[in-house]
Formats: sequence, structure tokens, C-alpha cells
Amino acid sequence: MAYHLLKGKTGIIFGALNSQSIAWKVAERAFGEGARIVLTNAPIALRMGTIHELAEKVNAEVISADATSLEDLENLVKQSMEILGGRIDFILHSIGMSPNVRKGIDYDALNYDYYHKTLDVSAFSLHKILSTARKLDAIKEWGSVVALSYVAAQRTFAGYNDMADAKAILESIARSFGYMYGREKKIRINTISQSPTPTTAGSGVAGFDKLEDFAERMSPLGNATADDCADYCITLFSDLTRKVTMQNLYHDGGFSSMGMSFRAIEQYEKSFRDCP
Amino acid sequence: MAYHLLKGKTGIIFGALNSQSIAWKVAERAFGEGARIVLTNAPIALRMGTIHELAEKVNAEVISADATSLEDLENLVKQSMEILGGRIDFILHSIGMSPNVRKGIDYDALNYDYYHKTLDVSAFSLHKILSTARKLDAIKEWGSVVALSYVAAQRTFAGYNDMADAKAILESIARSFGYMYGREKKIRINTISQSPTPTTAGSGVAGFDKLEDFAERMSPLGNATADDCADYCITLFSDLTRKVTMQNLYHDGGFSSMGMSFRAIEQYEKSFRDCP
Amino acid sequence: MAYHLLKGKTGIIFGALNSQSIAWKVAERAFGEGARIVLTNAPIALRMGTIHELAEKVNAEVISADATSLEDLENLVKQSMEILGGRIDFILHSIGMSPNVRKGIDYDALNYDYYHKTLDVSAFSLHKILSTARKLDAIKEWGSVVALSYVAAQRTFAGYNDMADAKAILESIARSFGYMYGREKKIRINTISQSPTPTTAGSGVAGFDKLEDFAERMSPLGNATADDCADYCITLFSDLTRKVTMQNLYHDGGFSSMGMSFRAIEQYEKSFRDCP
Amino acid sequence: MAYHLLKGKTGIIFGALNSQSIAWKVAERAFGEGARIVLTNAPIALRMGTIHELAEKVNAEVISADATSLEDLENLVKQSMEILGGRIDFILHSIGMSPNVRKGIDYDALNYDYYHKTLDVSAFSLHKILSTARKLDAIKEWGSVVALSYVAAQRTFAGYNDMADAKAILESIARSFGYMYGREKKIRINTISQSPTPTTAGSGVAGFDKLEDFAERMSPLGNATADDCADYCITLFSDLTRKVTMQNLYHDGGFSSMGMSFRAIEQYEKSFRDCP
Repeated sequence: MAYHLLKGKTGIIFGALNSQSIAWKVAERAFGEGARIVLTNAPIALRMGTIHELAEKVNAEVISADATSLEDLENLVKQSMEILGGRIDFILHSIGMSPNVRKGIDYDALNYDYYHKTLDVSAFSLHKILSTARKLDAIKEWGSVVALSYVAAQRTFAGYNDMADAKAILESIARSFGYMYGREKKIRINTISQSPTPTTAGSGVAGFDKLEDFAERMSPLGNATADDCADYCITLFSDLTRKVTMQNLYHDGGFSSMGMSFRAIEQYEKSFRDCP
Repeated sequence: MAYHLLKGKTGIIFGALNSQSIAWKVAERAFGEGARIVLTNAPIALRMGTIHELAEKVNAEVISADATSLEDLENLVKQSMEILGGRIDFILHSIGMSPNVRKGIDYDALNYDYYHKTLDVSAFSLHKILSTARKLDAIKEWGSVVALSYVAAQRTFAGYNDMADAKAILESIARSFGYMYGREKKIRINTISQSPTPTTAGSGVAGFDKLEDFAERMSPLGNATADDCADYCITLFSDLTRKVTMQNLYHDGGFSSMGMSFRAIEQYEKSFRDCP
Repeated sequence: MAYHLLKGKTGIIFGALNSQSIAWKVAERAFGEGARIVLTNAPIALRMGTIHELAEKVNAEVISADATSLEDLENLVKQSMEILGGRIDFILHSIGMSPNVRKGIDYDALNYDYYHKTLDVSAFSLHKILSTARKLDAIKEWGSVVALSYVAAQRTFAGYNDMADAKAILESIARSFGYMYGREKKIRINTISQSPTPTTAGSGVAGFDKLEDFAERMSPLGNATADDCADYCITLFSDLTRKVTMQNLYHDGGFSSMGMSFRAIEQYEKSFRDCP
Repeated sequence: MAYHLLKGKTGIIFGALNSQSIAWKVAERAFGEGARIVLTNAPIALRMGTIHELAEKVNAEVISADATSLEDLENLVKQSMEILGGRIDFILHSIGMSPNVRKGIDYDALNYDYYHKTLDVSAFSLHKILSTARKLDAIKEWGSVVALSYVAAQRTFAGYNDMADAKAILESIARSFGYMYGREKKIRINTISQSPTPTTAGSGVAGFDKLEDFAERMSPLGNATADDCADYCITLFSDLTRKVTMQNLYHDGGFSSMGMSFRAIEQYEKSFRDCP
């Protein structure tokens, strides 16, 4: 179903690795709603993933960029503006990675070089993207920027490790920059706090399966999928949400507002039964 | 601009008094997006306002109902289902009134009969509407209910009085019922926490003008208008936000995430200047 | 261990039923810290519980009062001031009761008379106590009022039912009145959001045991006990916390800031094992 | 007035520069309550400030340590344990500094080296302190760690710049480490979100005076002073708050729960008057 919500709009989408990626689904949905887009990811992600399939599907060019490099970002934004014909309307930031998680280093014994890497890739990159866009005056008035987050920014999840700190500062950057860019150019910046999603990145967190099951049972509507998230992003890129800014928006089937559901406690209770 | 986001959908809209009402704008927008609706308000509001103009515009019937009366609500829901051809898709709750505010009774000396009236009209009515809808199985799966709230539910505003308590319990009802109705029928229930809006109800709060000015200067995007709110409601009634539930969604140009803006403090500073 | 933190202070403690009650522990602790107190509870609670044992222990008089009755409250406050020698320093509100919970009526089909009773007893009583105290100028400057709450005010717990709404509006009342009474008399009003506690009231909630176990495993420090809560209340009644007001203070071993602990997910995982 | 709340306890206090510092007041209060302490600050702060006066007053040794250096921290913790006779009971983290603020670089054009410095000094230092303490098993069971924060972690204040991000990640670190250290050693970690305080650091923020005035008028109890904060810290270091962890505790006279006070809006209104 297409509504033409993004007809005539253009945007840059960061973070599509493969067809499980949320960014992939957003690109498809945005294209379906009439947007023209540029896709980008880090060089290594371009090699490991299948983004070129997507590019063909949504008629987009792919530009390689390390989102921690101001030089790469400047090149990306300039090229995108050329390709898309001037200032753009929206940006999706769907980037996250923790070497500490990957190497199984516990939070209380973090490697600080890795920690800095986690934050640089997963959070500071948003600041750099916005700073570059602002310098080049690359986003139209009432443009919309969305970054993906997780409720671990507010509540601690065992195993999520330093990504919790990354999401906390990511949300802070969205607020801080949202104020600056809002007052100056009417650009809105929000984060979506998404259900645990079985993407390549998500599944990498230890114990992901059990957590996903628990979240599914806790959430009255069940977990939000990558497709659901793409739908939601479209509304935030559209002209219908112009006064929403500096918000962290839970998109999680209700999980964030639950303390305990009947379904989850019922399952939990089974853990105490004795085998005969 | 129409996107047909609500094509084929039906709903009930509570609280349109006159053309300044948020509910009025939502009705117009919903109609424009392809929805068929029923309008309702309390008998006295029907007489004092101009809802019949709206009804004509959006091709809707008007059904009188006191939202605190289970009998009226049952009649309303049944009639609406007849008119609209079965189960409905969305409900807007835009109802609020405080006799204590009207009579200038301070919060620390509330009249408790009035207090109960405030809560009954402004908050319990949401529970009664949902309870009636559920009993009559009146809302379709993935239906959407939105109630309008204000940031006074979280932070105290001088003069907002017992409406703060009403909004706090309104948001709690949205969560509590959101869980029940979500797990059972996949119906989502959210509140929108809207900027101060110069409706007939809003303007009734003492000192509204100065507060509105302050909020305007604090919010990087300025206050959200009733028209903006109507746009936002449309996204929440649409199929694109199906996994958002039990949330309080700030729609306020960024106000809720601001501590102090440059524009507001600059104005504040002027208050200290000496006249020559 | 006694620190004389409340030496020379006087207070009224609502809600001690028996030796499991949090209010009971608070009375003992306050007495131990040098306070002189008056105990109060509803007539039926005085008959059903063992408050007179406590009264003897802490050398306090017991005054019967229905906390929903302005007349009873006025009598209580006046008598307390006579007994305690003038204006008092602190109040503990530890009152909660839901006929809907007791009778097993589900949240989506509430009996509204019972609902009003739940709110009147569990929340409006705080307003009435404060309103009465203010009218009689019964609390000293920098006095401290604490009411007990639960995280269900923010997140839905299956089975907690309309008590969630009661706690939400209780916390709102604490804020709203905290502003009025603070600006006028420097009186601070806070709520403590306490772990699930196996009191007579707490244990009455369906599925309490499993929830308590889950909370214990989620909280890095384990659940806070009634004794722990009494200690915490003492700090809030003392002169060391004079600038804390209008806050909801989580006292829960960390539960409120947890999304998922290793211990809880480990237990949860066991629910999936097959019996051989 | 002394209560001996910290009798027999030992701790390390970071960040006392001069007699206006909050850490200075905490050291005095902790000493007054019976604690033995070690003072520490960065080499340059030791030279620029007057910490040795304090050291004499509270009978403490001063150990120079750059809180971003793991080597310095290891030395500090080891020496402190020797001086204080083994494992310690509490730590105060009162450290914050932004080169971007100092050099007047706007948030949307941050120097990223400075940004990293801001975060390293103001936030990562807490992780490094905790990580070092844990490695050396330097804190007793039920020990207490407090770090000072500001409401800018939740709401944007013009001019507070990248310190907002620093406070946001500081609070996240407190939660994340609070979970690890809590489950393992029952150590609690909290942040205090303090009123704007006219310390050397605080006053450095542009427009501090006007903001302080606004906060004073917004807060029903007025701003919390450094002395008030010291009192509050004592309660958090004491045995009376053992089950409070992973919390951000507002200590601000009610500011954080205010939307608009009568006093503040009254002053604001004056800004519109015309000079005759």
C-alpha cells in the first residue's frame, strides 16, 4: 500500500547491510512512498553485505562512507546533494557496533579504546553527520532526522554492555542538536527506541533469543518488526509530524510501559516446576 | 494534501466544540484522509458550540453523549456502529473540564465534588469509553485510540490546578487499558501531550497568554498548533504506527525536552532592565 | 543503631496495621531516632490489626481516623497537635486499598463505585490530609511528607489493576501540592516507590509471590524490605534532605533501572527446558 | 549538628577545588559525621585551588590524580587503602570540564578532540574509577558511590553545550556499572542532579546568573546550595539508603518537577512592560 507520503522528498539512509537490516526496510518503504534516496555504509559493510541488491531495487546510488570520518561524510553529503538535486529532506541513522560486545569483554572491565570506538561509531557519528549537513546547509527546512535507539538507554540489560552508554549519548545528541538545528532551520531530530530486532547486529548480543522471547511476551502487541519500524519511520519523515522533535519514541508493542504481563509471568512461573 | 491514509476507516471523535477545537481539526483531517466519522459531545457543548457546521462539512452525524454516562456511551457506540457499518477503527478523546479552574478555587483548597467532576469528565470518561467499546466489541483489531494530554501530567504549572491530576490519571488509564485491550484485541491506546493551544478550553486557564508565549520561545520549532495536532493524529490512526502503544507522545515543538532556550532566557533577562 | 536524626521532631504516621506493615517499621525507626509520633488508621484497621502493641512500644497515642473523611482528619490533626505540643514535622502516608482487586474484578470491567473508593482511599486521602494540615497550619517550615507508591504508576503490572491509576494520581498530587505547600511554607512532599513488599496489603495482589521473586532476581541489590524502607523514610524526614521535593524516589534495589538481569533471564530460560 | 552517620566509614572525594566546590562541602560534612577521607584532584587543580586548607581542616591527605589516567587512579586507590586502613565505604565524583564551553565553541560545530576531552574528564572518569576500584576490590559491601549531575542530561539548556552529553553518559555509566557492581558486591551507585550552583565550574557557563535566577524562582524551595548538597550526600553514603541504586536523584528544590511557577511567570511578564 502506498500513500505517496514522501513524494518529491529525498534522503540519505545509513546502515543497510542486508535484507534483515531495519535500514534496508526503511529504504524500500521510502522508495515505495515516492522518495529518492542515497544509500551509504562503511566500506567493510559494503563488502560484507548485499546493499547493491537493494540499490537496484530502490533505484539508488551507493556511496561508501565511514560515518566517523568528517572527510567521508563531507564527500557523502556533497555527492548526495548532486545526485538528489540539492538540499535533502530526511536522514536515517541506523548504525551501531561495539568491539567490547564482539570480543566478549564485560562492562566492568571495558577496553577503553574499544569503548571509544563503540561511541564513535554508534553515537558521535550522528553528531558528525548533523554537523556536516549543517555546515553544507544540506537539509531543507522542516527536514527530519531519525536515529535508531534501544530502551537500554534508560534501563540496564545484562549483556548489552557499552552499547547502553552509546544509546544514552546518542539520544542526548539528538536532543542537543535538535535544539540547535530546530531553532535555526526548523529541522527535527528524533530517536526511535525499537523492540529487539533479529538483524545481524541485534542477534550478535549474547542471549538475544531469550530476551526477544521475553520482550515478545511482555509487549501486549508483541515486538515491533523491522517492517513495522520502516512504516513508523515513514510517518516521521512525512510532513504530518512536523512539530515532533527532540523525542525518544518507543516503538515496541508497549514493552517500555510494561512492568509485568500475564503472559511473561506465566512463562516465568514454569521455570519453577519440578520435572516428575 | 491528501494521502488517503484513513481510506475505508471509521471512527468516533469526542470533543469538537467550535472551529478552534483540536477535535474539529482532527475531524476535518480524518475526513480529508478518507475516513467516515461520527461526532459527539455533551448536550450542553452541542448547544453552545457550532458542531453542526462541522458535521455538514465532514458529512458526519452528531450524537449527543455525556461521556461520564455509561448509558449514553452505550447508546453512542451502538448507534455509531450502525451508522458506520460495524466495528470502528479509531477514537479521539479530546475532553477536559475543571469546575475548580472555572471557579478559581486554588489547588490546596479544592472542592472535592468539583475535583471528582474534573476527573470524571477529563479522565474516567476515557475508561468508560474503552470499557463500553470493549463490551460491545466495537473496535477492530489494530484499531487506534488517542487521548489528548498536557505536560502538566509530569511537571507542575501554576494555575493548571487539578487538571494536572486529571491528565496524570488519564495517561495512566491509557497505559492500563492499553495493556488489556492490546493483549486481547491488538488495539493500541496512546496520549498526545500537546503544546498549549488557544482553544476555548485552553484559553480558560489563568495566565494562558504568557505561558503560551514562554512555551513558544522555549520550543525550538515553536508551539504545535491544532492543525499540526490533527496531522499527527492522522499518523496515529493510520496503519503505519501499529506497534506504538501505551505511550505518551510529546507533540510540542520540542518544549518537553528543553530546560532553557536562548530565546526564552533572552526575553526573561529583559524583565530586569530598569526603565530610564 | 540510633543517630538521633529526628530528635525533637514530631509526626503522624498513617497505615500501620500489623508488624509486617511498612508504617509499623517507620514508626519504630522514627521513635528510635528520637521522634514523638501519633499513630492513626481507619476504625476497621484498628480492630483487625495490632496497632496497640505498636503504640505501647513507641509510646504513642492512637487516633482513629478515616483518611477519606475531612471531619476525621481535622479531628486527627487537631488532637495530634495537642498531644505533640504544636505544629508537627513529618507525615507518612502508607494507605492503599482497592475493592476491585479484592473482588477480582478485571481492569477493563471496573466497578466505578469501587474505582472511586480505590482512588479516594489510596490517593485523594493524601490531598485531604495535606489540605487539612495546611488549613490548620499544622506542619512546621521545612516539614516533610512522604507517601508510599509503586512503579506500577509508570509501568503496567498485570493484576495490579486500578491501584496503578491510584498510584499515578497519588504521585501527581504529591507534585501538585508540593509546589503549593513548598512555595508557601517550605514543606517538601515526596513519594517513595518501594519494591513489592510482603505486607498484608501487598500479598493481596494476585500472583504476588512470583512477581516478588522476579523483582528479587531483577534487582542487583535484591528487593528493598519494609525495614530498609523505614531507614530511607528517616532520611527523608531528617534535616539532611531539605531540598528534595516533588520527587518520586525509587527504593527498590535497582529494579526500576533494570531492563533484564542475568539472574532473571537465567531463571526465565529454565521455563523452556523439557522434562525428560 | 552531627549525627555520626559516617562513624567508622572511609571514603575518597574527587573534585574539591576551593571553598565554593560542592566536593569541599561534602568533605567537611563527611568529616563532621565521623568519616576519614582522602582528597584528590588533578595536578593543575591542586595548584590553582586551595585544597590544602581543606585537607588540614578535615585531617585528610591529598593525593594528586588525573581521573582520566588508569595509572594515576590505581596509585590513588592503592594509597588510599593504605592510608585509610583497607577497603573504603564511599566515593564522591564531582568532576566536570568542557574545553568547548571554555573556548566558546558552539554545540553544532564542536571540536571533536575537545569533545572527547569533555567526556573523558566528566564521565569516562567515573567508569575508570569504578573499574579500578573493582579490580583492586577497594570498596566494601554496601559501599556507596555518588556522582554529581545536572538536569541538562534530560533537557537541553542553551549554553550547557557538550556537558549535556557528558552528564547523559555519566548517568548511563552509573546505571550500567551499578548493575554490575551491585549484583557482585552490593555496591550502590547513584547520581545527584543538583541545582545550578555558583561554583567555579558552574559559573563558567555563559548566562549562569540569569539561569540561576530563573531556577530559583521556578523551584518552590529555591535552589539547593552546595551545603544542602553535602547534607544530601551524607544520607546517600550512610547505611540508611542501602537499597537505593542506579538512580538519578534530583536535588533541586523541586525544579525538575516544575513546568512553570507563579513567581517565574510573574517575573517573565515584566519583560513585556513598556518603559514610560
